[in-house]
Amino acid sequence: MINHHVSNKALNIEPFHVVSLITRAMELEKQGKKIVNLVVGEPEFKTPKPIIDSAIKSLEQNKIRYSPSLGKVELRESIAKWYQDREKINLCYNKIAVTSGSSAALLLTMAVLLNPGNEVIISDPSYPCNRHFVIAMEGIANCVPVDSKTNYQLTLEKVKDNWTEKTKAVLVSSPSNPTGGILDYEELKKIYSFVCSQGGYLIVDEIYRGISYDKEPVSAAALGENVFVINSFSKFFCMTGWRLGWLVAPEKFIEKIEHLAQNLYISNSDIAQDAVLSAFSPDVVSQLDSNLIHYKEQKDYLMNELLRIGFKIPVEPKGAFYIYADASNFTDDSYKFCWKILEDIGVAIAPGLDFGNYRSNIHVRFSFPKTINIMSEGIKRIDNYLTKT
Amino acid sequence: MINHHVSNKALNIEPFHVVSLITRAMELEKQGKKIVNLVVGEPEFKTPKPIIDSAIKSLEQNKIRYSPSLGKVELRESIAKWYQDREKINLCYNKIAVTSGSSAALLLTMAVLLNPGNEVIISDPSYPCNRHFVIAMEGIANCVPVDSKTNYQLTLEKVKDNWTEKTKAVLVSSPSNPTGGILDYEELKKIYSFVCSQGGYLIVDEIYRGISYDKEPVSAAALGENVFVINSFSKFFCMTGWRLGWLVAPEKFIEKIEHLAQNLYISNSDIAQDAVLSAFSPDVVSQLDSNLIHYKEQKDYLMNELLRIGFKIPVEPKGAFYIYADASNFTDDSYKFCWKILEDIGVAIAPGLDFGNYRSNIHVRFSFPKTINIMSEGIKRIDNYLTKT
Repeated sequence: MINHHVSNKALNIEPFHVVSLITRAMELEKQGKKIVNLVVGEPEFKTPKPIIDSAIKSLEQNKIRYSPSLGKVELRESIAKWYQDREKINLCYNKIAVTSGSSAALLLTMAVLLNPGNEVIISDPSYPCNRHFVIAMEGIANCVPVDSKTNYQLTLEKVKDNWTEKTKAVLVSSPSNPTGGILDYEELKKIYSFVCSQGGYLIVDEIYRGISYDKEPVSAAALGENVFVINSFSKFFCMTGWRLGWLVAPEKFIEKIEHLAQNLYISNSDIAQDAVLSAFSPDVVSQLDSNLIHYKEQKDYLMNELLRIGFKIPVEPKGAFYIYADASNFTDDSYKFCWKILEDIGVAIAPGLDFGNYRSNIHVRFSFPKTINIMSEGIKRIDNYLTKT
Repeated sequence: MINHHVSNKALNIEPFHVVSLITRAMELEKQGKKIVNLVVGEPEFKTPKPIIDSAIKSLEQNKIRYSPSLGKVELRESIAKWYQDREKINLCYNKIAVTSGSSAALLLTMAVLLNPGNEVIISDPSYPCNRHFVIAMEGIANCVPVDSKTNYQLTLEKVKDNWTEKTKAVLVSSPSNPTGGILDYEELKKIYSFVCSQGGYLIVDEIYRGISYDKEPVSAAALGENVFVINSFSKFFCMTGWRLGWLVAPEKFIEKIEHLAQNLYISNSDIAQDAVLSAFSPDVVSQLDSNLIHYKEQKDYLMNELLRIGFKIPVEPKGAFYIYADASNFTDDSYKFCWKILEDIGVAIAPGLDFGNYRSNIHVRFSFPKTINIMSEGIKRIDNYLTKT
């Protein structure tokens, strides 16, 4: 008789620590406390109205059925056209899989690539789920420390130094959660060439693409055939709760990705697929592009205020909507720090621990897609608290 | 350097063979051919209007956000109440996880239970994805032949005979796809007791629950603490394309299931969760219950017609909306047979091969949630074809 309890992979998958904080924040709110939420990674903007209208139209027709496992062809073609129009990248729709959020895209990528024991090189800090998708597929996440010296991104040198005979892929995120770092395109090309020379694959998480404060480099989909590009309608398109994303995969993997998707998901939300066809119209895109003005204002405001009250921010975020701040002036246990300021002053921020182990004890993540009013209230509370203690 | 191609688990996951047939059927339709589709496992009924209306209301409010990974508490409570009202089973909502279709419920169950090499006992024939979820989690699907003598269901004896020291769980489906067999509740209790005595777990797929032509036994959720019950809004509630289901899990696994869901899915469709709160109203339930009259008529019609033209149906389906027919009067290669009748006479049915290996070469599956007109046309074509050849 074997051990009949929880699987090792489940044991090795950590909670999102922020979720416990959010749950507690909700409890406190129910008790009548006013909580300042600077923790959720979600645009404050509503989903653009034409997308809503298309969803309502689809519902009124009431033909909400199973659809092809890789997504409706019309939507896959629209995504290919999006790459063509916006990025001048020519992709066949057949390389594109529509997925239930970028989550499913990451799961399919790891499932099609990894045998037990295969390694994936990932930066530390990085988005927590990335390493957990690897673990769920019985792979090994080789988390490589990165810091402000490389914009919190992997470099060719770091990839080379950490590549082993078990390595099957390198996963980078650009712009990155939690740091907002953008990977220099020349460096990315070098990493890609090296990975290819080793017979491996490059996975590029671009789910914050479109939310950048400098000119963005071209999408990694332009790199070549051995790259998996992950994207989502959640962030730039303001559609978190719809659960729709996509994957651009090497053509030789698509058939097996389809078999995996058929078996693991059957199909994506029919309503979301119908709705999102309206997301690529020039009016909607121009509205979404204009959101950047607000994100930038919010970022600049929060950066200045955090610096003023004593946080250190070695690298200004170039994309996404987070500030990964060094809180070493105040704590060497940022997990405890986050809990304490939630309980004591009702401000919710994310502990570094969620994003890795490397110096995570002195880091915290602030989410800034919030009104200046809300952020100002949060800063006031934190400043008072830090001054007193 | 390791093998840099597709993972073994992906190689071991077979396609849904019917999907290729459906794709070809669509091509033929585009060429102007009239195809009779008796292959898709999807109610022909529309989603009840109150559910549609709630979805539209939710969209009009345009607050489509991330939600708790195990589902909105209000919905989890509604599902618990559903068990209470309909089944007289008292469940704490905390044991219930809302999932993206039953697919995600199956993935979470296998992920939380299986280490590489752990075995799960499954009947052959059974729903193809079941064995593939096991393979995706690096487990071993021990597919045990069943036939008409046991209503195509596992028995205590078969479970005992096939239990090894590597076995971690038994998965049964009732009513079953593809056979419509319902597992006798006394036998299920015996299997449950045996599985518990071995320190293992019972997984019961109840996604066709509510679609039964005899009195249904009580849900397996009543068995006790060591059972995982999988269910879905797709079939009884007529909501396939919405992608929403649920899992009732042992309480001791819920925390790890939550961590897995946080990491692998983040959250479910917000629109679908809001909408489905209307699914439990007495009016909607009574409408859904009345669908059974039509399913039964369709089943009786198709049964009689298939028998008349020479198929054998050793066990009349007691639930779901499929007939698993013995086609040995016509073929010993039902895969080729299905392709041939699609190409030659434009009738799409599912080859036994999708559901396992045991005598699958002489079986085919017919889906009967179709109008009598459509089925009649299909039968006419098949009868003419079989008479001629």
